[in-house]
Order: sequence, then C-alpha cells, then structure tokens
Amino acid sequence: MKYDKNNLNIAYIGGGSRGWAWNLMKDLAVDEEISGTVRLYDIDMDAAKANEKIGNMLSSRADVPGKWQYKAMETLKEALTGADFVIISILPGSFEEMASDVHLPEEYGIYQSVGDTVGPGGLVRALRTIPMFVEIAEAIKAHSPEAWVINYTNPMTLCTKTLYKVFPAIKAFGCCHEVFSTQKLMAAMLKEMRGIQGIGREEIKVNVIGINHFTWLNSAAYQGEDLLPLYRQFTEKYAEEGFAIDVEADAVRNSYFNSVNKVKFDLFRRYGLAAAAGDRHLAEFCPPWYLKDPDTAREWGFGLTPVSWRVKDLKDKMEKSRRLLSGEEQMELQHSGEEGIKQIKALVGLGDLVTNVNLPNMGQIQGLPAGAVVETNAVFSQNSIRPVSAGQLPDEVYSLVIRHVINQETVIKAAFSKDKDLAFKAFANDPLVNIGIKDAGRLFERMLANTRAYLPGWEIEK
Amino acid sequence: MKYDKNNLNIAYIGGGSRGWAWNLMKDLAVDEEISGTVRLYDIDMDAAKANEKIGNMLSSRADVPGKWQYKAMETLKEALTGADFVIISILPGSFEEMASDVHLPEEYGIYQSVGDTVGPGGLVRALRTIPMFVEIAEAIKAHSPEAWVINYTNPMTLCTKTLYKVFPAIKAFGCCHEVFSTQKLMAAMLKEMRGIQGIGREEIKVNVIGINHFTWLNSAAYQGEDLLPLYRQFTEKYAEEGFAIDVEADAVRNSYFNSVNKVKFDLFRRYGLAAAAGDRHLAEFCPPWYLKDPDTAREWGFGLTPVSWRVKDLKDKMEKSRRLLSGEEQMELQHSGEEGIKQIKALVGLGDLVTNVNLPNMGQIQGLPAGAVVETNAVFSQNSIRPVSAGQLPDEVYSLVIRHVINQETVIKAAFSKDKDLAFKAFANDPLVNIGIKDAGRLFERMLANTRAYLPGWEIEK
Amino acid sequence: MKYDKNNLNIAYIGGGSRGWAWNLMKDLAVDEEISGTVRLYDIDMDAAKANEKIGNMLSSRADVPGKWQYKAMETLKEALTGADFVIISILPGSFEEMASDVHLPEEYGIYQSVGDTVGPGGLVRALRTIPMFVEIAEAIKAHSPEAWVINYTNPMTLCTKTLYKVFPAIKAFGCCHEVFSTQKLMAAMLKEMRGIQGIGREEIKVNVIGINHFTWLNSAAYQGEDLLPLYRQFTEKYAEEGFAIDVEADAVRNSYFNSVNKVKFDLFRRYGLAAAAGDRHLAEFCPPWYLKDPDTAREWGFGLTPVSWRVKDLKDKMEKSRRLLSGEEQMELQHSGEEGIKQIKALVGLGDLVTNVNLPNMGQIQGLPAGAVVETNAVFSQNSIRPVSAGQLPDEVYSLVIRHVINQETVIKAAFSKDKDLAFKAFANDPLVNIGIKDAGRLFERMLANTRAYLPGWEIEK
Amino acid sequence: MKYDKNNLNIAYIGGGSRGWAWNLMKDLAVDEEISGTVRLYDIDMDAAKANEKIGNMLSSRADVPGKWQYKAMETLKEALTGADFVIISILPGSFEEMASDVHLPEEYGIYQSVGDTVGPGGLVRALRTIPMFVEIAEAIKAHSPEAWVINYTNPMTLCTKTLYKVFPAIKAFGCCHEVFSTQKLMAAMLKEMRGIQGIGREEIKVNVIGINHFTWLNSAAYQGEDLLPLYRQFTEKYAEEGFAIDVEADAVRNSYFNSVNKVKFDLFRRYGLAAAAGDRHLAEFCPPWYLKDPDTAREWGFGLTPVSWRVKDLKDKMEKSRRLLSGEEQMELQHSGEEGIKQIKALVGLGDLVTNVNLPNMGQIQGLPAGAVVETNAVFSQNSIRPVSAGQLPDEVYSLVIRHVINQETVIKAAFSKDKDLAFKAFANDPLVNIGIKDAGRLFERMLANTRAYLPGWEIEK
Repeated sequence: MKYDKNNLNIAYIGGGSRGWAWNLMKDLAVDEEISGTVRLYDIDMDAAKANEKIGNMLSSRADVPGKWQYKAMETLKEALTGADFVIISILPGSFEEMASDVHLPEEYGIYQSVGDTVGPGGLVRALRTIPMFVEIAEAIKAHSPEAWVINYTNPMTLCTKTLYKVFPAIKAFGCCHEVFSTQKLMAAMLKEMRGIQGIGREEIKVNVIGINHFTWLNSAAYQGEDLLPLYRQFTEKYAEEGFAIDVEADAVRNSYFNSVNKVKFDLFRRYGLAAAAGDRHLAEFCPPWYLKDPDTAREWGFGLTPVSWRVKDLKDKMEKSRRLLSGEEQMELQHSGEEGIKQIKALVGLGDLVTNVNLPNMGQIQGLPAGAVVETNAVFSQNSIRPVSAGQLPDEVYSLVIRHVINQETVIKAAFSKDKDLAFKAFANDPLVNIGIKDAGRLFERMLANTRAYLPGWEIEK
Repeated sequence: MKYDKNNLNIAYIGGGSRGWAWNLMKDLAVDEEISGTVRLYDIDMDAAKANEKIGNMLSSRADVPGKWQYKAMETLKEALTGADFVIISILPGSFEEMASDVHLPEEYGIYQSVGDTVGPGGLVRALRTIPMFVEIAEAIKAHSPEAWVINYTNPMTLCTKTLYKVFPAIKAFGCCHEVFSTQKLMAAMLKEMRGIQGIGREEIKVNVIGINHFTWLNSAAYQGEDLLPLYRQFTEKYAEEGFAIDVEADAVRNSYFNSVNKVKFDLFRRYGLAAAAGDRHLAEFCPPWYLKDPDTAREWGFGLTPVSWRVKDLKDKMEKSRRLLSGEEQMELQHSGEEGIKQIKALVGLGDLVTNVNLPNMGQIQGLPAGAVVETNAVFSQNSIRPVSAGQLPDEVYSLVIRHVINQETVIKAAFSKDKDLAFKAFANDPLVNIGIKDAGRLFERMLANTRAYLPGWEIEK
Repeated sequence: MKYDKNNLNIAYIGGGSRGWAWNLMKDLAVDEEISGTVRLYDIDMDAAKANEKIGNMLSSRADVPGKWQYKAMETLKEALTGADFVIISILPGSFEEMASDVHLPEEYGIYQSVGDTVGPGGLVRALRTIPMFVEIAEAIKAHSPEAWVINYTNPMTLCTKTLYKVFPAIKAFGCCHEVFSTQKLMAAMLKEMRGIQGIGREEIKVNVIGINHFTWLNSAAYQGEDLLPLYRQFTEKYAEEGFAIDVEADAVRNSYFNSVNKVKFDLFRRYGLAAAAGDRHLAEFCPPWYLKDPDTAREWGFGLTPVSWRVKDLKDKMEKSRRLLSGEEQMELQHSGEEGIKQIKALVGLGDLVTNVNLPNMGQIQGLPAGAVVETNAVFSQNSIRPVSAGQLPDEVYSLVIRHVINQETVIKAAFSKDKDLAFKAFANDPLVNIGIKDAGRLFERMLANTRAYLPGWEIEK
Repeated sequence: MKYDKNNLNIAYIGGGSRGWAWNLMKDLAVDEEISGTVRLYDIDMDAAKANEKIGNMLSSRADVPGKWQYKAMETLKEALTGADFVIISILPGSFEEMASDVHLPEEYGIYQSVGDTVGPGGLVRALRTIPMFVEIAEAIKAHSPEAWVINYTNPMTLCTKTLYKVFPAIKAFGCCHEVFSTQKLMAAMLKEMRGIQGIGREEIKVNVIGINHFTWLNSAAYQGEDLLPLYRQFTEKYAEEGFAIDVEADAVRNSYFNSVNKVKFDLFRRYGLAAAAGDRHLAEFCPPWYLKDPDTAREWGFGLTPVSWRVKDLKDKMEKSRRLLSGEEQMELQHSGEEGIKQIKALVGLGDLVTNVNLPNMGQIQGLPAGAVVETNAVFSQNSIRPVSAGQLPDEVYSLVIRHVINQETVIKAAFSKDKDLAFKAFANDPLVNIGIKDAGRLFERMLANTRAYLPGWEIEK
C-alpha cells in the first residue's frame, strides 16, 4: 500500500460528533505534512453537515497550515469507498439508555463511576453497540477492505473484537488515551520528587500490558532510568492525600471526572505494577474495593460521573457548534493530545512510532487467550502495525484481568447469538454485581428492557 | 510394591479423632478381605489412646469379621515407619480459631456457610494448616516415602498441594465424599421422576471435573442413559421448593447442615453442568449470589453452620467415646459410606476402582494449570492411581473456577514465604470479600491476629 | 443408551475379509454372554456372502455357545441402520497399489518394513484411504449416529481422525493389538529372568502414551511391582542377540514378520521408555537408524515384509474359505487374542475395562495438540469411553513423535483439499525420505500416479 | 541506566580477532556520535595487544572522526569491570577441532556446508563452546551485571541460551547478519524485476520469525507494498539457474561461500515463507534434501566450506595484521554493514531502532517454548530491547524448526550435566544424521574424542 500523503482519504463514522471529530479537525489543521479529504458520516446527517461546514471554515483560515476538505456523506458506502483510513467514534444509543446503564444499578446498591466499559452498564452498552459494529465491519469489508480502521468507541475491547470477528482480515486497531495520563503523572512525579521540569509524556517510556481501561505498566523509564522505585516512594508519600494533575478550573467537572489517583497508588502498592487508566475506570474492573458505595468512592478521591452531566455537556457543545457555524467563535488552534494523526502519519510512511494500541492477542501478552483484544505497545510503520511483546501478568493481576477477558468473550458470543441467558452469565460474573442472583436477574431484565430498541430479535420481557 | 493383604500397616495422623477415625474403624470392621495394624498418632495422645482401646474392643468382638490391631504411637516417626498407607485427618487449630474464621467476617457483612475451604475463613484456616502439612510431608518423605497417603483434611486442595510441594514424589491423594451426595440426589431423582427404587449411588456414573467442593459433573448416566436431560426437568420442577434427601431426624442439625439443593439446581439451570458438592460449599465459591446475607441463604434453602454447633457436637462425641470405652455402648457395625477402604483395597490389588479424587493436574482437566490440585475421576489399581481425562470446563464455569485456582496458588506461596501482603491479594480477591479494600485489610489483620499462635514467623499486628 | 445384550446389532464394514472378520466370528462364537446379528458389508459382495455362510455354519454348531446371525447386506445404509456397533476393517485398494507403496521407494534407496502407517508407503496409502473413510463417516452420521464405531484399518491414526473430522460427534475409536505384544514380551521376561510362568498379558499393567504403532510405555507393573528396572537388565542382556517370543513354525512368515525385539531394546536403552509396537513398525517412525538399507534391518533382526507374501497369504486364505464353505474344514474354536468383544461387552454394560485405544487428544497426552488422535489407555464402561491421563512424553521422544503428528495433520488437510503440494510437504518431512528433494518429488509423483484410481479430483501427472 | 555517549566502555571478549574486532574498529572509526574505550580481552594476549595497537593507530588518524581508546586487558575481570557493553566474539577451539566437526562426518556419508550451528559438527562445537560461555556468563554476573551483552559467536542460539541459563537477569542478545542478505536479495530483485535502483537493505521491511540461521520472513514490504507476490514470480523465474548478488572477485572464496540462492527459492516456493539465511546454513537445518551428497549441493548451487580455506584465510589475515602494525597498510575506512554500533547507539538513547535479534522467547513466536532463544525483530530504545510479536510458523515449517529447538534444549542440558547419552539423543535426531544408529554412535564417539580437550569431566572413550 502506497499512500499519497497530500491526497489522503479519511472516512469518519460518527462524523457529526462534537468531541472526537473536532479534535481530529484541530489535529489535522496544525499538521503540515499531510492533507486530503475527510468524509463525515453520521446517522444524524445534520450534525455531519454542521461539522462539514465547521471543518471547511477551519481549513480555509490563513493561520491553518493543514488543508483538508470536509464532506458530509449520505451513506456509509459513499463514506467508505476509496478510504485510506476509517475512524469510528460513535455514541451507541442516546443518553436515555446511558442513564439506565449507569443509574438503574444504583437501585440495587451497585455504583459505577463511568459505566461504559464493564460493570452492568458497560455490559448492556456492549450488547447495544455490537450490532452497530457488525454493520460497520460488513460495510468496511465490502467498500474499503484495505483501509486502516481506528476505533475510539467504547467499550473499546468489544467494539474492536467485533470488527475482527466479522472481518478477520480487517486492519483495525483501538486507540485510547488513558495510558497517556499515567505517563503525565510520572512526568509530574519527576517534577515533584526531583524538580525536573518540562518532561513530555512521550519521554516516559512504558511497557503496556493489559486490556483497555485496565491496563498496566510493568516498566517505566525516563532517559533509561527505571522509574518504578521512585514511583513506589511517590505512591507511599501520597497514599493518603492523593496527587492530582491537570486540575481544570471547572469545579463541577472536577468533581465528576478528576481523581487524585489514590486508586492507582493503592493498586501499585499492592501489586507492584502501575495501573494505567483513570481511577474511575480502574475501580470498575476491581471487586467493590473502591466502589462499595458512594462514600467509599469519595474516600478514594474519585467521582461518579452522572449522565446528567453528559446531557449538560452536550448542550454546551451544541451551543458552541452554533457559535462556530455563525462565526461568533473560532476553533482554537491547538493539538488535542490524541495520537490519531501521528499513527496515520506513521502508517503513511512518515516515520516509525511505538505507542499503545488495542489489538487481537497474537502472543504480545502471554497467558491471555489468542484473539482476545488486548492493549500493549505496537510498532507503527508504513502500512504495518506489529505488537510489541509485553510479557506476562503476575498471577494475582492475571486473575483480575482474565475474569473480564472471559466475560467479554461471553458477551460477544451472546450478542452475536442474541442469547440472553448467556449474556446473564457474564453479567452475574461482573465484579460489581455483588448482589443476590435473583436481584441480579431482575436488574438485568430491566436494563435490557430499557435498551430494547437496540436489541432486535432478543426475547426481552416488557 | 506388593502388599500383604493380611498384614497391612496403616498410619493414622489425627488418630484421636472421633469422626473420620471411627468411620475407618467401622469400615475396617465390616471388611472381610484385609487385616493388619492401624497406628494412631495424634497431638492429643490421650485421644489416640482412647481410640486405640475403642478400636481394639471393636476388633475383638465376635460379630466383627475385620480383625485389626490398633496402637497409639508417641511420635509421627514411629507411626509412619513401615506404613503402607497413611491417612491424614486432623483439625487444624481449635474451635476458637474456627470461630474467628467463620464469624468475625460477619461483622463486616460477610457470611459463610462453612468457612473451611474458601472465603475469608477458608483462607485463614489454610494459612494455619499448611505449616502442619509441611511437617507431615517431611516426615513421610523421611519415614514412609513409598506409602500411599490419603488426605481427608480441609482445605483439601491446599493440604494436598502442600504434600506435593514439599515432597513431589509423594503418592498422595485427597478424598472427599461430596460428589457422592450428588450421585445420591440423582438416584433419588430416578425414584421421584421414574419410580425406580433402590439404585445405589455407585450406579450413577459421572464424569467429575473441578476443584474440591466446587466440583462439576459434565455427564451422568444410569445404565448407559444420559441423565442430564432428566436432571434438567427435575431441577426445573423443584427450582422453587427444592428437593431434599437424607433428611435427618435432628432438626437442629438439619437447620445447619441440610439443604434442599436449590443452589445446585440454580447452577445447573444456568450453566448446564451439575455442581457436585453441598449447597453450603458451592455458595461459598460463587459471588455473593446465594450468600449476600443470611436472608438470601435462607431463601436458597441452606443453613450457615455456626461453630457453636461444632462445639456441641464434639461434646456429644466425647460423651459417646466415654460410653464406648466403658462398654456402656457398642460401636454400630455399619459401613460409613466413605470410600477409603475401597481405595486401599484397589491399591492393594483386590480389584480396580474408578472414583473421584483430588490430584495434581497432569492434563486430566484441560485449561487448568499443570500441578494445580483438581478433582476428577481416577482409575485405582494395584499400587497405581491414574486420573481419567475429564475434559474442559465451559468458559463461564472456568471463569468461576480459575479465580479460586489462582487464589489457592497465591495462598500456598504466601504460606511458604510467610508473606502477608501476598496472602492479602488472595484474600481481597475472594468472591465473598465484597467490601471496601480498607475494611478488607482490617478484617484480614484481625483474623490473622486471632490465629497468630499457628503462624510463627509472620509479622502480625497485635 | 441401553443395550439388549441378547439382541445386539453389529455392522461390519469390510465384512468379506478373511482375517479380522474370521477373528470376530471366532471371538463371538466362544462368548457366552452376548448374542445378536452381524451385518456384513463389503464392496466384494461375494466375499461378504461367503462370510455370511461361514458365520452361520459356525453359529449353528453344537459346540458353539455364542449364537449370532450373519447377513450379507447390499448397501452400507442397510448394514448401518439400527447398528449398535460398527466395525471397520477394510483393505484400501488392491495389492497392486500396496506393491507400489512398499517397493517403489526401494528404487530410491528407501526401505520400508511394513509401509502401511508412515513412510512414503503409509502416506500414499493414507491419501487413498481417507476418501473411503469420509464416505463411511457420512454414512454413519446418516444411518447410525449413536453407534459405537471400532476401526481396525491402517493407517489407524488417520482413519480414526477422518471419522471425527467428518462427524465430530461420532463415538469412534481405533483398536490395535501392538501393545499386547509388548505386554507378552514382559511376561516372557518374567519367565526368563525370574522363572515365573503363566502370566497373562493382561496382568502386565502398563501406562500407554504415544501414537499408533509408535506407542510407548512409561510405566509397567506386575502385581504392583515396577517392571522397568528389570526390563533394563533384560534389554541389556539381550541387546546383541535379541529375544524372540511366539516364534511360529512357518519359517518364511518368520523371516518377514517376526523380530527379535532388538529395536525395542535399543530404544528403551536410549530413551528409558519401552516402545510398544513391533520392531517393523517402530523402525519406520525413526530416522533411518534401523532401516538405512536391508543390511541394517537384518542386523537389527527384523524383516521387510514383501507384498508378494501378502498375495500368497491371501491365496491361502481364499483356499481356506473354500474349504470352510464346503465343510472340508471347520473353523477352529479359539479366542483370537483381540479385544474387540471385550470392549463391546464393556460398552454394553457387562463390566468395566481399562485398555489401550486410539482417540482424539483431550488432554490424555499433555503437549500433543488437542484433537490429534493418540494412543493411551481408556476406561470402557456402559456406553462410555474416557481416556486415562497418560502424562507427557520426555522431550527427546516428543521430538520423534510430534514430527509424525504434524505430518499426519498435514496429510489429512491435503487429502481433504486434494492438495498435492501440501501432501508433498509431509512426504518430504517423513523420516525415511532421506533423499534429495528432487528425487523425493519424482518418487512422490510416481507413487501418486500408481494410486491414481483412488484419487479422483487430484492433479496427477501421467 | 544513563549513558555518557562520549565516555562509553566496551569490553570485547575475543578481542584479538581479526574479523569481528576489525569490523568494530572500522564502524567505531566512522561514527561521529559516540566515543570511549574498548577493552580487549583474548586468551591470546598477543593478538589482543596487536589489536590494541591497530585500534589506537586507527583512532589517531586525522581522517577518523570516531575517537576511541583501545586497551588489551590481562583478565576477564579487568575487561568487564565498569563495562557498559560487552561484545563476545570468540573462536571455540582451534581449526583442528573444527576440521573434525566438519570433515569427519564425511567418512560416514554426512556432508556439511558450514558445520558450526547444527549437524554433527554444530552439535559438537556447541558442547565445546557452552563451558566457555558458562565462564563468561559468571564473569559478567560478577563484574558487569548491568552491561548489555552482544554475542556474535556461533552456535548463536546455544551461546545466547547459555548466558541466560547461568545468569537469568543478563541483558544479552545475539546478533547475526544473515537476514540482511535476504533484504539485499529483495532489493536486488526490485532492481531486476522493476528496475528500481539504489534501494538500501534497511528499506526492505521484514517480519522475522524463526531461529538463528533458520530464520523466515512471513512478510516483506517496500514502501508499504507487500513484496511476497513479486518474490514468488522472482523465485519461479530463477528457480533453475539461481540468482546471485555480491559475487566477489575471489573465485576460490566464491566456490566455498557464495550461493545462487536456489535453496532459498525452493523453500519459498514450497512453504510460502522466505527463508532468511544463506543457503549453506539453510541446507544444514533441513533433511538431506540439499546435502544428500556433494553432487546434490553442487546441483543446488552452493559450496561446502572446507576448513582448509579457513586456515588459509587466517594466514592472510595475520599477514594483514602484520602490515597494519608496521604501517605498510592502513585500515580502510568503511562501514562493515554490521549493526552492532547502531544497536549500541539505540541503547545509549540516540534514536530507536527496529532490527532482528536473538532473544529468549517471551511470546514473540507463538507455539515455540518459552525461554527458547529465537530470532525476531525487536525494538531497541534507551536501555531497553523488546521483541516484536512475530506470530506463528505454519505447521509444516514449525515441524522443521521445533526439531532443532528441542535438540538445542537437549544439547544444553547435556552440556551442563556432561551427559553423553543425552547429547547423543540430539545427535541422532539431527536431520543430517541419516545413518544407521550404530554408525552414528561410532561417529559421535570419535568426534567427542577429537574435541576431548574442551570437555573436562566427560567420559569419553580414547
């Protein structure tokens, strides 16, 4: 595959989004090496059209070096045909279903900090999302089988797995920025403990091993120096009070999103590996150690993100969209911190890159099943991604991880076969579902009923 | 190894016991094919001496065909030297430690129905027991390396594993009668559903796959007919009310010990494999599906056995011991239902036997780690035990089982290295420990403190 | 599955044979516990009809306790419908193809002692036989899916594997008597070295581990005593001269079939495991250690069986068939030494049996691929066969065995896909094919051409 | 580990060599980024001293940018203490032993093209070399445990494995340039088939999978284009005549060393993977397909390198050494094509590098045993090497490779335990040892006798 770096074709599924799509626009805008066309596809065509206009306005600005043409497309087929790259970033369902995912379990004493990956909410979200990814995978197989496919949608593991299950030859991978935060935390630690300023997160070299949002670092180095001994001191020093970086001015957002990394510190102190995702995610993968109830979460210094916040946030973004379209406001020119463009450039042949990515296991993590989607580093080079051998998880961490890996395999089998009983086996085995089995059954049935519109063919009680 | 069936030497460690030891005496008494000497060793020498006398009184009775000589021995070395068979059935610690194992977790909202295998109680019991088995294994290695070693002590898996870890060439296996009850249940089912009377439990042929007290049957047959379809009807019919066999007259005992098999039925209906241990054991291996709180247990039809009952029961047995010694009462002549003697006879060369047993995994269960002690059928023949290939657990059951298998490996490593932090990793990962991690830490510390006398060399807070 | 032991239905595919079929008749004739019908199917209907008559004559004799009815059937469907057991014992192709298999390689300096399992001859025979077994497996699936299927045809491993590949739920196993000879050899050893007479081969308890005709014993015992130390002395004593048992009067037959077990002794002395098949078979699985040329074979004390002998032998048997039919001669009443009837009786429910058998690997041999057909002991009981865990081969023996296991997987893939290039990969990797690769290619092409009639759809040069 | 790039310490074991050591000097001389000290250690102290002088003369030249100080050291300890990098390039034994390795087997009809890796010669060389590497590994453990260790000595796999076996925490890897030639061949192919000139071998991106000297490429790309389809055309076009690159003027050398890649082409045409080592090496790993006899080798276009040539070559180099020391001749300033310096620079932190390397398997090749030393790509970065996941070998190639992997494990166990019988198991299982087992025994005994001086503690017949 040879790419014309000045005429790249990117298809964006979920192209009406105001989060990831705007980030992409900004990153393309500030890049001077590549250009081409972005075709936006969204089930909300108006949103795609709005982004087409916002993107082209940005591209036409004199201060913008990266020139791209944005086009909203009517069909998936049109968006995909001829694509060199496909980006998938969709919201599966509406906030209504998400509210059921996140909050209904609270009636049964189950609290979730995010609810989009594991836990009862993550599981039901997966059941709803998998059929959408089946459709996308089939379209890619038909219209752009040679394209590289970048997924940003959660639940990351199951979305990526679905793509491979439908189309095993797909060149897909899943991207997630959670590891970056841990690199940033280590950079902050070097400032705090050693007074070294201005270290970029890429300078913290890590070995990534795990599954998305439950990822671990079994080595971390700065300029060749092993950082884990220092990290031990650091986690001990801040075990009680925690240590926060990047605190935003928005106090409300803070209370829901930020954490002081106490979960991360506790896991490191107990397991000797640095967990590398936000505390809100990590807590959901563990037994109810940190999520027994809202008080426990508070004690560990992280918030439970309510869906009401997401509703409010979307409203803000739609207002911003209006301002951008009217010219009242201009898109800020600033790199988003995401790596999508770097990865695309490496695949185009503009320099190799080693970064973390979600891919089916082909040995990069020993002991996890072949084909399970896992997160490790990989070498990106021209038209090629190869995972880096990450090694093996220690037994006790393996035990925490394999449970989710098996649950995820069960969920995907259940989603493909529309088998409610099978799905419930995963549901009941989720670490957060610590309730009587009958209550678990009732909760599951109610959650399915609430997302029924996305589960055609399932036998769901009304 | 050639055995003289009329001059067998059995060493009994824990030979002062009034449960398993009396069962052995009775089974030897009614058997006509073998005879020899039983050497009783116990840290309570008086109890051993009492049993010596009780055994010899029994042997001397005219109505007893099986003639054995019983001798209480002062040292483990004397008991073992020259032994063809070694039986281990000890009580690790006293009821005081057991009360802490079983009841202290209740303060934290953790309820256990037995508390001797897994759960916080089983784990702490294991830590206390492993050093005793280290000592026993070393003595066997020194004094009777060729003897067959039969363990009855709980936690079965970890006791057996310890024997192999210390002395890899040991010829040891673990025996448990829990599977028998499920065979009996199926015989009762055939009576209930088909009107067939008088089926012996051995006539129910089963394939056993799992770990002790969390064992499963993936096939069951009577006279060549697959019983699982009938078992499905049966479990559906009795899902709500349950179905009890062997209800004893003793109402108190019933309320603590018997169950109506509703847990078993629920697991079968959900997983398609028949769980083959008492509901009280099964419930402890699962997430808090059946043990969320005492009400949940009650709803599922099984009792939580209080240690007070065990104290009372021992008192009754000591009284009975007194009566036996004084001649006031005579030991009843009746087979115990245990298989120990059958196994010994098969090993001596008096006919092959296929039955379930706990042995290190050498492939009999695919997918579980090599060397983990697992429960499957095995072929017993002269001086030989070979496990039968049991196959593979379905993924969803595997997930429930592997968690305990890994925890057990962690516990044994922790016990050998006296590593409290390592032990806590297993503790916190037990399915019943569904509490905040800090509470878990406090509970663990208190439980260790209560069993401190048996943990020399550990760093335990006072 | 409940069987009526007095009304069993056996279908015999290859029912016109004068070897295995007559053995079956004799074994059924002397058995007093079971009776029923044997339906004979053969592509040579006349041969089947002759055997029908011979069988019924035998059954009608007053001195014959086992009463069976023999019926030659026109179609496979008729033979199979209603069968409880299916026996397969066919000759794939004629002596013409066999002569090519065995003797054409001699032109290239490759010598084979049997040529029906591995080596160039065994491989080409497999390619010819697999399509026949595909047809049989499909017929069984259609007409007698619940029947137990006993295969005697070589190449055993690939015939059995084909049955499972076509119909995974088949209840099939492969039977071979080669292990028995090694048991007999050990009984003879006990006579020779210890003076113990009259030991039956079943009294030598062995653990069987390997693949058919390249099977090994890693333990052997008599009355509980480990025989391997004695076997070491024995193999050292007879390393040079060899040791023969069961030498028949027929000197010609001897020169082709018997061996003095020197290959077996050499393998034991080098590997510490007792190889458990005839030297003629064992030699073919090894590098040309024993088959470098006819002189080497002679030096090792075994013959190369020429196909001319088989032609002559068949002629003798046809003459005997004529005599049996005319009443000139009566079938001798004598057990054949085969275990087929014992196995059938165990499956019917008339007593358990542990014996060696060929089955897909489900963990009975650790380290060999799941699904590969391997030879180990198994427990036969009513309507059930379960392999016994045999353990693991030592690395150096594993290396010899895995090569054939992989070759066999390649051969079966090649046969199913009619892929000559793929088949040649196995051919060139056979240990006996120690010639230049171009010569190997020419030999392969010529051998395929000679068996072309049985390879429809293959692209074979004329 | 932080490195001072202007004060690096390199210890060179075998520092008196006139091959690899001179290459290192030249590569250091032309590099402008790093400098420091090279400490030369050799059991031939005079040779080390000569190289000290040659190195320092080179360093002092005005046209040489890379300034290094060379010092011959008396002891291994002095050489190693303080080393950042250790290079090992030794000749195990003298040409006398090598002559026995390579030529004695010819008396038995076994022909070897190199005789230093596998085959009877490679195996005996390994037995001789392993004790030397035990000594080196122990010295590194004692004196420079943190140093990166680069091995160039053959047999590569076993030398590297020995280092890890003695000192598991060693940071060692094995380097070999054979893959580079296949990259060059593909560059030449692009010129030949497409007319594209001047492609550097690094521009051919390959995925490396296998073991040293029997390495395979399952993907190869140029500018993102899959080259394997073109390679298929190319290998078909040149299957008969072959295709040579880099033919040297020296006709004698040519006849012994060069090949026309016909073995490589044949293997690709049959297996679909590109074998990536010289034909002389590849042929030795296969059954006698290409090495049946000297004629077969000739037909396949490669030579058998006689030791006499190596004797002559050394003489030439010693003469050159004399001229360099006297100043008659000046070392040419030219990069050697080796990657050692690039690797060192990447480890120092001067830019990442992906290249092929020999390391213990930690999952980079699925299906090969953990810990076996395998060859794949790896990511070199500051103080870190991580293998890239290479995937899995196809079954038929796996069969060829696993045989050597197991043999190598056997050889190393035998060398450590001085167990001749065990070593012979590997010897007899080598693909080139296609002779009667008794002849194999005699040959092995004679070869061991010839290298007896290096096998203290072995029981070798005189």
